[in-house]
Amino acid sequence: VVGSTVACFGEVLLRLTAPQGEPLAQASAFRSHVGGAEANVAVSLALLGHPTVMLTVLPENPLGQFCAAELRRHGVDTRAVRFEAGRMGLYFVEQGAGMRPPRVLYDREGSAFALSLSEGENWDEMLAAGDWLHLSGVVAGLGRGAARSLIRLARAAYERGTRISFDCNYRPSLWRQWDGNAGEIFREIVGLCELLFAGKNDFALMFGSDQSCGTDETEAFSRGALTALSRFERLRYVATTMRERSEFDDHSLSALVMSRDGLCTARWYPLGRIVDRIGSGDAFAAGMLHAVIRGFDAQRAVDFAAAAACVKHTIAGDANLATAADIEAVLRGEFELRR
Amino acid sequence: VVGSTVACFGEVLLRLTAPQGEPLAQASAFRSHVGGAEANVAVSLALLGHPTVMLTVLPENPLGQFCAAELRRHGVDTRAVRFEAGRMGLYFVEQGAGMRPPRVLYDREGSAFALSLSEGENWDEMLAAGDWLHLSGVVAGLGRGAARSLIRLARAAYERGTRISFDCNYRPSLWRQWDGNAGEIFREIVGLCELLFAGKNDFALMFGSDQSCGTDETEAFSRGALTALSRFERLRYVATTMRERSEFDDHSLSALVMSRDGLCTARWYPLGRIVDRIGSGDAFAAGMLHAVIRGFDAQRAVDFAAAAACVKHTIAGDANLATAADIEAVLRGEFELRR
Amino acid sequence: VVGSTVACFGEVLLRLTAPQGEPLAQASAFRSHVGGAEANVAVSLALLGHPTVMLTVLPENPLGQFCAAELRRHGVDTRAVRFEAGRMGLYFVEQGAGMRPPRVLYDREGSAFALSLSEGENWDEMLAAGDWLHLSGVVAGLGRGAARSLIRLARAAYERGTRISFDCNYRPSLWRQWDGNAGEIFREIVGLCELLFAGKNDFALMFGSDQSCGTDETEAFSRGALTALSRFERLRYVATTMRERSEFDDHSLSALVMSRDGLCTARWYPLGRIVDRIGSGDAFAAGMLHAVIRGFDAQRAVDFAAAAACVKHTIAGDANLATAADIEAVLRGEFELRR
Amino acid sequence: VVGSTVACFGEVLLRLTAPQGEPLAQASAFRSHVGGAEANVAVSLALLGHPTVMLTVLPENPLGQFCAAELRRHGVDTRAVRFEAGRMGLYFVEQGAGMRPPRVLYDREGSAFALSLSEGENWDEMLAAGDWLHLSGVVAGLGRGAARSLIRLARAAYERGTRISFDCNYRPSLWRQWDGNAGEIFREIVGLCELLFAGKNDFALMFGSDQSCGTDETEAFSRGALTALSRFERLRYVATTMRERSEFDDHSLSALVMSRDGLCTARWYPLGRIVDRIGSGDAFAAGMLHAVIRGFDAQRAVDFAAAAACVKHTIAGDANLATAADIEAVLRGEFELRR
Amino acid sequence: VVGSTVACFGEVLLRLTAPQGEPLAQASAFRSHVGGAEANVAVSLALLGHPTVMLTVLPENPLGQFCAAELRRHGVDTRAVRFEAGRMGLYFVEQGAGMRPPRVLYDREGSAFALSLSEGENWDEMLAAGDWLHLSGVVAGLGRGAARSLIRLARAAYERGTRISFDCNYRPSLWRQWDGNAGEIFREIVGLCELLFAGKNDFALMFGSDQSCGTDETEAFSRGALTALSRFERLRYVATTMRERSEFDDHSLSALVMSRDGLCTARWYPLGRIVDRIGSGDAFAAGMLHAVIRGFDAQRAVDFAAAAACVKHTIAGDANLATAADIEAVLRGEFELRR
Amino acid sequence: VVGSTVACFGEVLLRLTAPQGEPLAQASAFRSHVGGAEANVAVSLALLGHPTVMLTVLPENPLGQFCAAELRRHGVDTRAVRFEAGRMGLYFVEQGAGMRPPRVLYDREGSAFALSLSEGENWDEMLAAGDWLHLSGVVAGLGRGAARSLIRLARAAYERGTRISFDCNYRPSLWRQWDGNAGEIFREIVGLCELLFAGKNDFALMFGSDQSCGTDETEAFSRGALTALSRFERLRYVATTMRERSEFDDHSLSALVMSRDGLCTARWYPLGRIVDRIGSGDAFAAGMLHAVIRGFDAQRAVDFAAAAACVKHTIAGDANLATAADIEAVLRGEFELRR
Repeated sequence: VVGSTVACFGEVLLRLTAPQGEPLAQASAFRSHVGGAEANVAVSLALLGHPTVMLTVLPENPLGQFCAAELRRHGVDTRAVRFEAGRMGLYFVEQGAGMRPPRVLYDREGSAFALSLSEGENWDEMLAAGDWLHLSGVVAGLGRGAARSLIRLARAAYERGTRISFDCNYRPSLWRQWDGNAGEIFREIVGLCELLFAGKNDFALMFGSDQSCGTDETEAFSRGALTALSRFERLRYVATTMRERSEFDDHSLSALVMSRDGLCTARWYPLGRIVDRIGSGDAFAAGMLHAVIRGFDAQRAVDFAAAAACVKHTIAGDANLATAADIEAVLRGEFELRR
Repeated sequence: VVGSTVACFGEVLLRLTAPQGEPLAQASAFRSHVGGAEANVAVSLALLGHPTVMLTVLPENPLGQFCAAELRRHGVDTRAVRFEAGRMGLYFVEQGAGMRPPRVLYDREGSAFALSLSEGENWDEMLAAGDWLHLSGVVAGLGRGAARSLIRLARAAYERGTRISFDCNYRPSLWRQWDGNAGEIFREIVGLCELLFAGKNDFALMFGSDQSCGTDETEAFSRGALTALSRFERLRYVATTMRERSEFDDHSLSALVMSRDGLCTARWYPLGRIVDRIGSGDAFAAGMLHAVIRGFDAQRAVDFAAAAACVKHTIAGDANLATAADIEAVLRGEFELRR
Repeated sequence: VVGSTVACFGEVLLRLTAPQGEPLAQASAFRSHVGGAEANVAVSLALLGHPTVMLTVLPENPLGQFCAAELRRHGVDTRAVRFEAGRMGLYFVEQGAGMRPPRVLYDREGSAFALSLSEGENWDEMLAAGDWLHLSGVVAGLGRGAARSLIRLARAAYERGTRISFDCNYRPSLWRQWDGNAGEIFREIVGLCELLFAGKNDFALMFGSDQSCGTDETEAFSRGALTALSRFERLRYVATTMRERSEFDDHSLSALVMSRDGLCTARWYPLGRIVDRIGSGDAFAAGMLHAVIRGFDAQRAVDFAAAAACVKHTIAGDANLATAADIEAVLRGEFELRR
Repeated sequence: VVGSTVACFGEVLLRLTAPQGEPLAQASAFRSHVGGAEANVAVSLALLGHPTVMLTVLPENPLGQFCAAELRRHGVDTRAVRFEAGRMGLYFVEQGAGMRPPRVLYDREGSAFALSLSEGENWDEMLAAGDWLHLSGVVAGLGRGAARSLIRLARAAYERGTRISFDCNYRPSLWRQWDGNAGEIFREIVGLCELLFAGKNDFALMFGSDQSCGTDETEAFSRGALTALSRFERLRYVATTMRERSEFDDHSLSALVMSRDGLCTARWYPLGRIVDRIGSGDAFAAGMLHAVIRGFDAQRAVDFAAAAACVKHTIAGDANLATAADIEAVLRGEFELRR
Repeated sequence: VVGSTVACFGEVLLRLTAPQGEPLAQASAFRSHVGGAEANVAVSLALLGHPTVMLTVLPENPLGQFCAAELRRHGVDTRAVRFEAGRMGLYFVEQGAGMRPPRVLYDREGSAFALSLSEGENWDEMLAAGDWLHLSGVVAGLGRGAARSLIRLARAAYERGTRISFDCNYRPSLWRQWDGNAGEIFREIVGLCELLFAGKNDFALMFGSDQSCGTDETEAFSRGALTALSRFERLRYVATTMRERSEFDDHSLSALVMSRDGLCTARWYPLGRIVDRIGSGDAFAAGMLHAVIRGFDAQRAVDFAAAAACVKHTIAGDANLATAADIEAVLRGEFELRR
Repeated sequence: VVGSTVACFGEVLLRLTAPQGEPLAQASAFRSHVGGAEANVAVSLALLGHPTVMLTVLPENPLGQFCAAELRRHGVDTRAVRFEAGRMGLYFVEQGAGMRPPRVLYDREGSAFALSLSEGENWDEMLAAGDWLHLSGVVAGLGRGAARSLIRLARAAYERGTRISFDCNYRPSLWRQWDGNAGEIFREIVGLCELLFAGKNDFALMFGSDQSCGTDETEAFSRGALTALSRFERLRYVATTMRERSEFDDHSLSALVMSRDGLCTARWYPLGRIVDRIGSGDAFAAGMLHAVIRGFDAQRAVDFAAAAACVKHTIAGDANLATAADIEAVLRGEFELRR
């Protein structure tokens, strides 16, 4: 079975990770990985068997080449990547442990990607062949020009009949810099989507805080998701992960999907020994996209995507390198040594 | 106190382990360790203070030399090892974490050991001095010639008065390749043994599935072990480990020993942060052999062997490098920093 | 806000740590860190913002230079360090995991520090500027001359009006070598202190075993601490950590502080995935000193110091490299990924 | 400028390299790289800007996936790779230094590639789009079936008008195993080629030893190359590298190209500090192919290819990861720190 | 003997170095070092025994703290460092080998240091205690504001009687960005200096190209240096290193110093196996400053500074970590294993 | 062919090596190797095929066990090793490069070996089976008791008919500590030897400085060696290596052997890229012993031993891990990549 073509548009970042147990201020070495929310989705989808295309701008230097090569290694098509002037967007990661959470230091200003968006890059022709386009709110947060570019791209895709998936991924530190109206911009894009990743805060931004209140997380999500489904008729699924910490690093993870047929809830997975939790939301998004493309029903979709997010915690780097077989094994509860 | 001489006969493998958090398909580096079920038992016994001899065939190349040297490093006598043509049997290990179990990829076909068994190697004279001979069902699974060699070696030892220990270690993937009758072969060897490591599936193979049923694992083991003791009069102990997973990587381990005086059960040890669980069964076998040689009673034997299997989980590589003092500390529940 | 100057007097050691999962007897590599109880306190205080001075003797060789440089790196003033003949005091660390506790092999005999103490080093003039002097019982354990030097230094500081903090840190293996009377020596120093770190065993040494009995650890501590406060009028706080292990590596940590206003207890923190637990007592001592210098009340002091001890478990090496912001985040229960 | 499509057919191997200064018999760790003569050429051509396709069979397991991913990372198109049963062909590398040359231990028997060739894999349809096909004598050495497959593939390509490049790469250890007639098979393939990589020994195999004698290496090559050009009219270039060692590791490298216009010789490059010399012949072949495709004249071709072979010595792993700009810098003699 | 206080003003950069043999475009890991021309001089001077102060601005984040800590580790006083908004200036280093020279990719735009210079930071009060101030032309290259700041600082120091050392360090890529007149700015600073590091190109910028011509490098330097000495009466020494490459990585290094007493030339040192050549110019500058402060005559000064530059090639990272004893050993030609 | 049994008596040390390019004062990690002059000879002889026994005392702790295990790994029989109280003798190694020679920092005082020698350990019974006993002057340098023990052991061996080999290995830093008369002690031992390793300085110590003068190194050696042969009638061979440095790290190595038939000289081998030169003298001694045991003539002996010393420079750690085949390849001048 060959999957549909999925195009992912967004900024690719180079992640530099300090060794376990070393705070960033002490780090005498770094491992490098490719990262960025949309790139993480692209890598996971490629490993799940979908032809996947990355739409981005990278700097014309060895760091940009490294990132493109890593995406290619994981099976993502990089022929549409543009190499332009500017720097490589970086982020530094301090791996947490126990009660010390991981920490991310962004160093992404002035990147080739950010520079190019303000100059009105035209990605339209790249979309001709794509069945799906995955976008994230991180791009919109980069500035007014970037937000406009994102909306224009979403509209062009919509008009071509490309199906759109959108992960709000609201990062207050970005939006604060230019005082952007995230709610308005998100609403504009969500109106073009079939698949939406959003949580309580995102609903509050889009619909006001009374649309995401409730006695617990599930209730707040349900209210917000139903509002979204009622306002945007093209929307088919609204999805989110939930994380609980009974104590410090004793996380467990579940997920919710609201469709026009009602709410489906995944089981709670205790996460045990976490190797790397960054990118678990992207792993979830890729799992949902996979499920929707493959035509899973909503319950199977939320189960698969939640299991994908859980397995991600056992893999170093941002991207979920698990295969569908690995995720299915988690779903079946197979924990035996595999020979 | 000096222990008895124990000879271990079996294939030595070179283990190549990918870094933590890296799936095999991404592994850019490997650590090398010596491995193989019988070699693991030999190493652990040597570290527990017993003169231990490895009987095996290694390839005449640097990888074979590496494995012999590593065995020697741990105190195993390698003067009886033969270096012959053929390749080094390998296996690649992907370290699991949390809900992703470890994964082993075997690459052992055409090894010098397997080649030599079909040519009727004669190990008899090596056995003259041995008090004990430890064997495993892995060798029998390698093919018809190998199974015949194993039985012949067991008989020769038996006739010399060497005491025999046998770990069924049933690996379906091996037996399937030549359609061998594991039950028949196991029965033949078990008839010569004093010490048997077997679980529910092994009893079913040897005696039919009604001999290993029961409402729980302990009951099934008891039924099978009593059948074995009743059929084979030389047999003194039948032993096994039990593993429970309340949730994903939250393993706990216990063990059972059936003797003619009845069943002894070890306590359940929660395993906590697992470094490497491969080889814990071999650590248990070595612990039991040590206990039997030292003349521990059955309860102390199962306690010691279970503690040995548990400590193994904290040590990288296949072999249990713990000393008797380390294991006794676990038995006494000493968890303080040792200065 | 700039803190008070704290001088820490004691031996600096070079710690050599074997890789995770490797027993010392197998270790083919070591990482080097600076260590020693008083140096750990100095480093943590420097990172918490206090001008900190190390008073010690290091060998006149590259290993001594390494240790001074590492202290300097963490912000400790090393201008008072003396470089003299003798060797570098070492200790080798085997990292435990799960049920295998960490293990420390000391190799500190004949160190430049120990040699110099018997020759009556005069540290007095270094103390002129110090507001606080932190000492530990480890120095006293090194021998008769060292104990005398420690007392002389404490008295000189006392006479100058320097406030004194003392951590009993009783190490039986040291005291046994010269048959020193720890109780007598500790009493002499405690009489000069404002801040004392002591537990049940230390009270028994100082006041007899009936002063530290009780149905539980809290009761025993309370009895001993009240005795200390009643006998030594300068003393303001007596503090200790408590550690519980529900099962093997499932540690949790709390702390107690007794002042003339009564007992304050910190909450129990489960420690989860431990990176390195050595030095957590020193992290606690630094946390208490910070709290006392900053004028926290007793409850906030014990909370802060306990959280400091907990965060230490997530950092490799002996010294707590956490900042005040890291510790405050633990106190507030913030476990989110920090971007 | 976009290059021509080049298809490379051959076995991809997984290379496991011991750390510098460690003999294979001591190696406790290995780095993994993708290797194999034809794959090395493919990687280098991709980095030089040519659309490059790998035609091979890999095992259906994580090691096979690793190799395909690594090729993709370097820009080689792997969509034509077939994943089938069998093992991954391996080789272990001991890095030499000074007077100890590097050492390669092959472990490639029973590989998925070798197994598939005896079963008559049909690669013909893959060739439709290729402008060039690069082959090597290593494949022919694998056995009678493999040699036949190679010839069939070369003929199919020839008939489609694909231009053929062939590197004799004579490995006596392979040919000896099945007593193949290398000279006859090489002649058959060379008759279809435009570009041939061959040295003195290869000419002796193909044309008899009187065709490659001479007072020095250049003379022997010239005689053999002229014979080849006179016998095979399609042949345009015959090329080889020369290596001199004035003393131990003090290598220098040059190269020769014979065309119908006569002999061109590259300068002698001293190699200095060698990082990894394996694969320098493949780097040369890729350099020549690049030069021929780009239409360089023979002198510029031999200069460029020799410089490519030299730069390879500074890069770890088998494949030449240098770009055209790196190689041009060597040609221009630019040795300054590049900022 | 305690040295004079030397203040070094300039940008501190974080260097990220790829592993040996890996081009930047392939680098999966980086080692971190502190770097920057003036910081390198500060570190070397501190290790040579001089009280050394770093005057700079670092970002208020963990990377800035890392750099300050590393400087402190080497004995540089960082109490005058200011932590302000902005990013950490980075550069990525590809280690060359043989004929592939090392390569530096700068990523320093928008750094906290660069931002602060345009806002007129006032460093004057920091200079009160300094005997010497070392500056470099890199700062001037950062932009018009930076150049003005540098001149203002030099004048303020001059007026206070602080002696000034200046290394032209002309980086065309920086000056090109804002079209700055390097010659004019350099002349302005050199007029305030006692010690100048300049080569042929720098003289051409300052005095026109006829002032640095000649049949060889020594002649060109002499002409330029004499012009400088004649125009700027405060100037006492003009110094430079010379590098020769007989073949590729077969470097040798010498140095020239012109004083009012004439030219002194160091011997030519062959460099042999180079570990890291970046920062050798800074090592030379530190060596000259040391020699001038200590009052060496010109010949001994140039010998010492050349030897310092040579030893730097054997040490990883930018800064010369050699001690005066190490450098003296090179001067005496001692190559024996030191026990 | 099985060799003769060789017993090596001396102190085993644990070597801790800093990473390449890092001075000891900066070393954040160490690799561990077993070392010590006599142990190095034992390891090399075992790898050359001789049954080899180590006679030593190690501390009863994990570091002592590590050293014994490493010796065993290389095939040395450790059953005669005694484990006693005391510390592990250590030495720290800074790897040099280019003009910075390697540096060794000893930390061996108070070792279990040194302590036991003063208490009159009796090794006599261990010698019954040995054909050869290899000793070194390092032991004699440890102190008066150690020197007496060494002489007693040599005499006991002599009386039993064991043949003795002695390497003077004069270390002034050791002898200076107790003002021992090295010449007298050496003469006493040499009188019992067949094989002596000594150079110019050793002859001066033993026979006065007029016995080792001459216009060059060869002449000085010849004079001293002839004196030794004339005074000690049991002596058959006197041997030494010579090292030349045309420039810095451009070493070359040769060797001399004087027998009663005259002088034999090995060729000069340029050493090229040195990985580790420590232990090359021990590699030479092992090569000579091998040659004498195998009955090589003097010329072949000196050639083989010199080649052994050269190959050692390419191997990390103290011990020569080369096989006879590796050394023979150097003798034949084979520098090709070995497949």
